[in-house]
Amino acid sequence: MVSWKPVYARRADRMKASEIRELLKVLERPGMISFAGGIPDPALFPVAAAAQVYADALASPNAASAALQYAVSEGYGPLRQWIAEYMTAQGIAASPDNILVTAGSQQALDFLGKLLLTPGDTALVTVPTYLGALQAFSAYEPRYDSIGPRAANRTPASYADEAAKEAAGARVKFVYVVPDFANPTGETLSRPARADVLDLAGELDVPVLEDSAYSALRFDGDEMPSLQSLDVRRRGSLDASRVIHLGTFSKTVAPGLRIGWVCASRAIISRLVLIKQASDLNVSAINQIVMHRLVKDGGHAGLIARARAHYRLKRDAMLRALEAQMPSEARWTRPDGGFFVWLTLPDGVSGAALLDRAVNQAQVAFVPGAAFFHDGSGTNTIRLSYSLPEEAVIEEGIGRLASLLR
Amino acid sequence: MVSWKPVYARRADRMKASEIRELLKVLERPGMISFAGGIPDPALFPVAAAAQVYADALASPNAASAALQYAVSEGYGPLRQWIAEYMTAQGIAASPDNILVTAGSQQALDFLGKLLLTPGDTALVTVPTYLGALQAFSAYEPRYDSIGPRAANRTPASYADEAAKEAAGARVKFVYVVPDFANPTGETLSRPARADVLDLAGELDVPVLEDSAYSALRFDGDEMPSLQSLDVRRRGSLDASRVIHLGTFSKTVAPGLRIGWVCASRAIISRLVLIKQASDLNVSAINQIVMHRLVKDGGHAGLIARARAHYRLKRDAMLRALEAQMPSEARWTRPDGGFFVWLTLPDGVSGAALLDRAVNQAQVAFVPGAAFFHDGSGTNTIRLSYSLPEEAVIEEGIGRLASLLR
Repeated sequence: MVSWKPVYARRADRMKASEIRELLKVLERPGMISFAGGIPDPALFPVAAAAQVYADALASPNAASAALQYAVSEGYGPLRQWIAEYMTAQGIAASPDNILVTAGSQQALDFLGKLLLTPGDTALVTVPTYLGALQAFSAYEPRYDSIGPRAANRTPASYADEAAKEAAGARVKFVYVVPDFANPTGETLSRPARADVLDLAGELDVPVLEDSAYSALRFDGDEMPSLQSLDVRRRGSLDASRVIHLGTFSKTVAPGLRIGWVCASRAIISRLVLIKQASDLNVSAINQIVMHRLVKDGGHAGLIARARAHYRLKRDAMLRALEAQMPSEARWTRPDGGFFVWLTLPDGVSGAALLDRAVNQAQVAFVPGAAFFHDGSGTNTIRLSYSLPEEAVIEEGIGRLASLLR
Repeated sequence: MVSWKPVYARRADRMKASEIRELLKVLERPGMISFAGGIPDPALFPVAAAAQVYADALASPNAASAALQYAVSEGYGPLRQWIAEYMTAQGIAASPDNILVTAGSQQALDFLGKLLLTPGDTALVTVPTYLGALQAFSAYEPRYDSIGPRAANRTPASYADEAAKEAAGARVKFVYVVPDFANPTGETLSRPARADVLDLAGELDVPVLEDSAYSALRFDGDEMPSLQSLDVRRRGSLDASRVIHLGTFSKTVAPGLRIGWVCASRAIISRLVLIKQASDLNVSAINQIVMHRLVKDGGHAGLIARARAHYRLKRDAMLRALEAQMPSEARWTRPDGGFFVWLTLPDGVSGAALLDRAVNQAQVAFVPGAAFFHDGSGTNTIRLSYSLPEEAVIEEGIGRLASLLR
């Protein structure tokens, strides 16, 4: 056999199989109830509309020539235009030059790690934070440091001092946040916390990566302004803003087309276009054409309204079941939107150990929380996703889980 | 304005807009004849079949749920199985576990750079080589060193010495070759040269990245065994082979679906799956399902047969026109397949300067060769692609180009 280890890059040491991934292998077992993946309900997929627009995209020889050919790395012009208008309607005056189309927002996380991180640089993240972001960034060998929910647990000077202590040239490079119905906690940053994050980024003079994967799926309460819209107001324009906004159609239309976007200063977009070109040239042309036709002319608004109503019922079913069945020592979040409830187990109960029992004794799956903590803490937490199971199944699954804790 | 420069990673210095990319901006001008991009002829796209299989993939609720959903990072099972059988038919006994589906082979180049290159490591490449490979690798900050067409211009010991001279830990990490109808030269490695590359890789104990983007498009001469098939014979099995083979459907079916693959030892594939997961999760599920249905049951063989006949006529048209019209000081390659002729200009004529005159005075475009040389040489070379224009247009375009050289 070949000994591959000596030829791997140093970064390969930081690439591990994720717990979510290993988990998914048991989800196929019959009778398993899964609260694991952050997976949209296929009942919401616009199947008939998609069938129609795929057919349209291939209906004429000219249309088919473009749909099946290479395309520009920036993304399909009409889709960039639509996204720019969508961002503008949310208080961020954007032109298509401010938009890059990516293969989901996971790819945007990878590209931003590639653009910003030299080994040893510091990335500021919340604790816990989205596991996929940690995986994407870790390939570029950063150190992590934590910002609290109010972004005020340390001073800008202390972050700067910390970075200066590291190897020459290392420094804080960005702040990463999921402001709305966060993966994994389901929590939403308050307005004062948003202002704090922008203040911190301003004092450190670093970009803020705003991951808005779930932001369109609000069930309750008032819309909260995005960090990018707040920063555009502070700084006068999107090109002057420090916020790099990541959006996706995966939770609102369908993930199978692999389409997300970055909205940012043109300076950043032009750099990311070079990275896109060197990484995989362009997002599938036919999928971009299809996505544009699905979302335009009110299509996106209709899908969002349906998704909000649908997931709200599931969220309600999970919260009802947790109230009725969980022992009083457990605590959990009450999300205003998105896919996730975050549960803190009674003292001394490990999420990983509970998963082992849950899968084997109760046929129910979830994600142990520890994977979302860059610092190794959070062992007594778990993430519960209500997006996929039906309401009666959610009730049954929470009952099974609660029985393991009594 | 924000000063972004201080937050960019060190590697950003090595990411430049490519000449090919800038070129493409003038290709839309009416009357322009383009020998620039390595772009397949859309006349060959299987449009009716694609329309049918997209419709099939969305015809039932169950099928649509899978086609529009997230998918496993390795790739769609039946497509991996088909690719494994395709590789097996070429002398490489592969199982689906030896296959990763990627977003074109460009993504495979990016992933292999990510897996193998620590800054300062050495990548061995031919001079010239595929520009997109240099762009993908350069993000991981390697040094480049050159292997000659016979891979015998230097000894293994001299490469090892060179690497040892560099910063501690740096070393030769891989050899990258495009063995068949290479981009950009159109040349094919002889059997002895293939053996030399494997010998070199064996002595250095490093992988060989075999980029077979054009290998299926042979017009003349006998099939040449892939480096991977030769190495499997030497080493006894694919899992013991040092060769990592990159394939793509972009030149034979259609690039718009963005589907390629890596065939390699399971040890390598399992590492690349982690990289795929952290980079963009998975290739579009619907596109993988569609591609599988297009290539199975002889679909792929039929498309290849048609493409070979089609591009052979174009190659013949270009070689005829070059013979008839070029001044005797110019020399060019005579490819047995693929998309490219490589032309060496008369002494003192710069490819970049010729392009400027060609675009503005003669309405004809191509790619100056210098971009394909990691060492800054090759200024008097150009790449001519015959894949896109019709035969009469090829004749006209070569005539216009020749007139600039007389």
